[in-house]
Amino acid sequence: MIQKKIILNESDMPTQWYNIIPDIPNGVAPPLDPETKEPMRPEKLAPIFPMGLLEQEMSDQSWIDIPEEVQEIYHIWRPSPLVRANKLEEALGTKAKIFFKYEGISPSGSHKSNSAVAQAYYNKKEGVKRLATETGAGQWGSALSFACHKFGLECKVYMVRISFDQKPYRKSMMNTYGAEIVASPSPDTNIGRKILKSHPGTAGSLGIAISEAVEDAASRDDTKYALGSVLNHVIHHQTIIGLEAKKQMEIAGEYPDVLIGCCGGGSNFAGLAAPFLTDKLEGKNLRMVGVEPASCPTLTKGLLAYDFGDVARTTPLLYMYTLGHDFIPPGIHAGGLRYHGMSPIISAMVREKIIEPISVHQLECFEAGVLFAQTEGIIPAPETCHAIRAAIIEATRDKNEPKTILFNFSGHGLLDLSSYDRFFAGDLHDYDFPEEDIAKATKNLPKI
Amino acid sequence: MIQKKIILNESDMPTQWYNIIPDIPNGVAPPLDPETKEPMRPEKLAPIFPMGLLEQEMSDQSWIDIPEEVQEIYHIWRPSPLVRANKLEEALGTKAKIFFKYEGISPSGSHKSNSAVAQAYYNKKEGVKRLATETGAGQWGSALSFACHKFGLECKVYMVRISFDQKPYRKSMMNTYGAEIVASPSPDTNIGRKILKSHPGTAGSLGIAISEAVEDAASRDDTKYALGSVLNHVIHHQTIIGLEAKKQMEIAGEYPDVLIGCCGGGSNFAGLAAPFLTDKLEGKNLRMVGVEPASCPTLTKGLLAYDFGDVARTTPLLYMYTLGHDFIPPGIHAGGLRYHGMSPIISAMVREKIIEPISVHQLECFEAGVLFAQTEGIIPAPETCHAIRAAIIEATRDKNEPKTILFNFSGHGLLDLSSYDRFFAGDLHDYDFPEEDIAKATKNLPKI
Repeated sequence: MIQKKIILNESDMPTQWYNIIPDIPNGVAPPLDPETKEPMRPEKLAPIFPMGLLEQEMSDQSWIDIPEEVQEIYHIWRPSPLVRANKLEEALGTKAKIFFKYEGISPSGSHKSNSAVAQAYYNKKEGVKRLATETGAGQWGSALSFACHKFGLECKVYMVRISFDQKPYRKSMMNTYGAEIVASPSPDTNIGRKILKSHPGTAGSLGIAISEAVEDAASRDDTKYALGSVLNHVIHHQTIIGLEAKKQMEIAGEYPDVLIGCCGGGSNFAGLAAPFLTDKLEGKNLRMVGVEPASCPTLTKGLLAYDFGDVARTTPLLYMYTLGHDFIPPGIHAGGLRYHGMSPIISAMVREKIIEPISVHQLECFEAGVLFAQTEGIIPAPETCHAIRAAIIEATRDKNEPKTILFNFSGHGLLDLSSYDRFFAGDLHDYDFPEEDIAKATKNLPKI
Repeated sequence: MIQKKIILNESDMPTQWYNIIPDIPNGVAPPLDPETKEPMRPEKLAPIFPMGLLEQEMSDQSWIDIPEEVQEIYHIWRPSPLVRANKLEEALGTKAKIFFKYEGISPSGSHKSNSAVAQAYYNKKEGVKRLATETGAGQWGSALSFACHKFGLECKVYMVRISFDQKPYRKSMMNTYGAEIVASPSPDTNIGRKILKSHPGTAGSLGIAISEAVEDAASRDDTKYALGSVLNHVIHHQTIIGLEAKKQMEIAGEYPDVLIGCCGGGSNFAGLAAPFLTDKLEGKNLRMVGVEPASCPTLTKGLLAYDFGDVARTTPLLYMYTLGHDFIPPGIHAGGLRYHGMSPIISAMVREKIIEPISVHQLECFEAGVLFAQTEGIIPAPETCHAIRAAIIEATRDKNEPKTILFNFSGHGLLDLSSYDRFFAGDLHDYDFPEEDIAKATKNLPKI
């Protein structure tokens, strides 16, 4: 009988996060202060982030110790299983071996908890009482709500309007973890009120919700801001995924030919891929495929440039692939992938041709998700369906090629089932970003 | 750092189910044919059950091999983790050690998959094309939908009306697994139409839904019936829970002073408790506590008698604790516990004073569930909240007593979040079953 799962002992869980930045050829460009256009000084970000996280954000050390208090909470669900998707392989009739790292096993249902627990810890340690954050599909907001409760912090979540309406159970989950939730744009902030006035009925976006949460944090002494993706420290925290997966693949006696992850802000894919980078640089034949939605094709159609991380232009300038900070993506059901920008780390890896970006459409992703649920049992989040779709493309391009595929199963879709209802009802549509629109979308990029 | 989880290797998963019946003092009374009042002959049940399951139902062998095909699907999620609820212990300020067996890890979210996969397998093996079943909260229906898809069977689920309305995501999940779902009572059966006429607007009950599914199976040559609890073969399949848990407690270096599980039809609790029975009979100081809702107190206020398993009087007569087959319980949110009867195995163990039954109220259970979610992360199903409530009662009766508690975490509550919404909104109420009503509730018991 085939071994289905490789599960590490708690004592084999990594005790350090990996910082990939020192290993990326030609480096990762630093964030700039939008006023001076000089590299951002940590002190200037201190009103919204704790120093512990800012140090990680700017760190040039390759390894960062995971505090014991964080490890202890990780043990609720970590190490996460590595699973052989042999039933999916059979259904596809492929000779490829498909493995997935199952991050949906965390209490809030996704990889987001890996960074949420760490962020809540460092904020608590520095006496912060309350965190403000945004959430797209709700995965990050749920994870931070849980993490805040564990460390006795209050939590306010600005949830992108379309997800707020599509995914009511996410609100219920955050309520159960004791957080306060509001749909974004909201009447609770200046930027929210302004957008509600200029764009009544808007579906919202991560860029808007980030602006609201940053404004909330900047305007209150007891509050700091937490971001669920994009930034370097978030990626560091997520590398525990790849560090575990590497050990598990070794136990399985396999090495991946291709690594796959969906990309919204980039944290789940970077977390899986980062620990494999040095192997690739040393000549290992390993492809890394980042998957984004065709409706929000940051990596495949965006520009590599300095841009704001949010609509209100309140964040530092990040050097990243972007569709422009004022681009509002169509209301697809993978809310976690509706972001105009991309992690500077992923952006640098795309620039260096380490990562191959591809884009896929919404409907083919839901089809892949249904096939996965019917074969492997677990119902994937719409974001994760993008990774599954790419894994299927890889596994079926030549069904006789015995390649080894490893994808990151970033989260389950149990709180996204209304999206599946709409898919089955034929109510979902595909969206393309017209090639010729990139100039228009990025016309407001800041001048450097 | 405390070890949080004990996880067995797939190769350590039990390869036999345990049949507890030969070990129960004074035995378990056989099912009777309602026409002849004689022990039921298997041949008479052959139209609705495959022979493979009927043999197990009547078996006097202590061990039953788990077919390889079933083991292989079990490996998707089994062996399930044994988890130390140390964060809950801390919140309670108790010296008790609390462990739980986490059955919510299965794809459909509960222990029900353990029997669903087995039942689908034996039906498939005998050429059955389609299964009809009932579901209360939706856990069993989801599990069987998944299992049927794995073995290429069609599946029709009669879902108790109140759960159908309260838990729309359960329908979505069953749809995703390719099943057909209808609210019960439904217009699809004679008994359904009759009850819709006599009790318009009824919340439905498991007793009604069973009648509909049995009628469906009995009226079609290609279809058999599947039951998610109560019957002996279901309990046998669920013993894999206790068999694993026993090994895991041994690895943890602990032996439980008290075992706890919620009881609707009895399968999850019997599954955990059964493999510990012989220890108890040999003098081990081990209590077994079965927890039921005060609104449907089968074990604590019902009569031990032969009764029908369903409203339409279509099942064999089962010797069990019962509130009467025509009792329709109040519409509490633990839909899986809204059953008038109880597994004959659990009933015999209560009769022999092996199991202590207790009843608890809905609101204290939701409070326990919220505390559990906030400490241990996982949001429990309302049914499971009953077991957690009992574990808290045991752990706090004397907080200085260093006892070891093991409860069965039968299922997660991610598809029950609307119940939590109603709890937080103050819309839920407690119900009691008046002591003096038992004569009325059981006035229609069959004469033996």
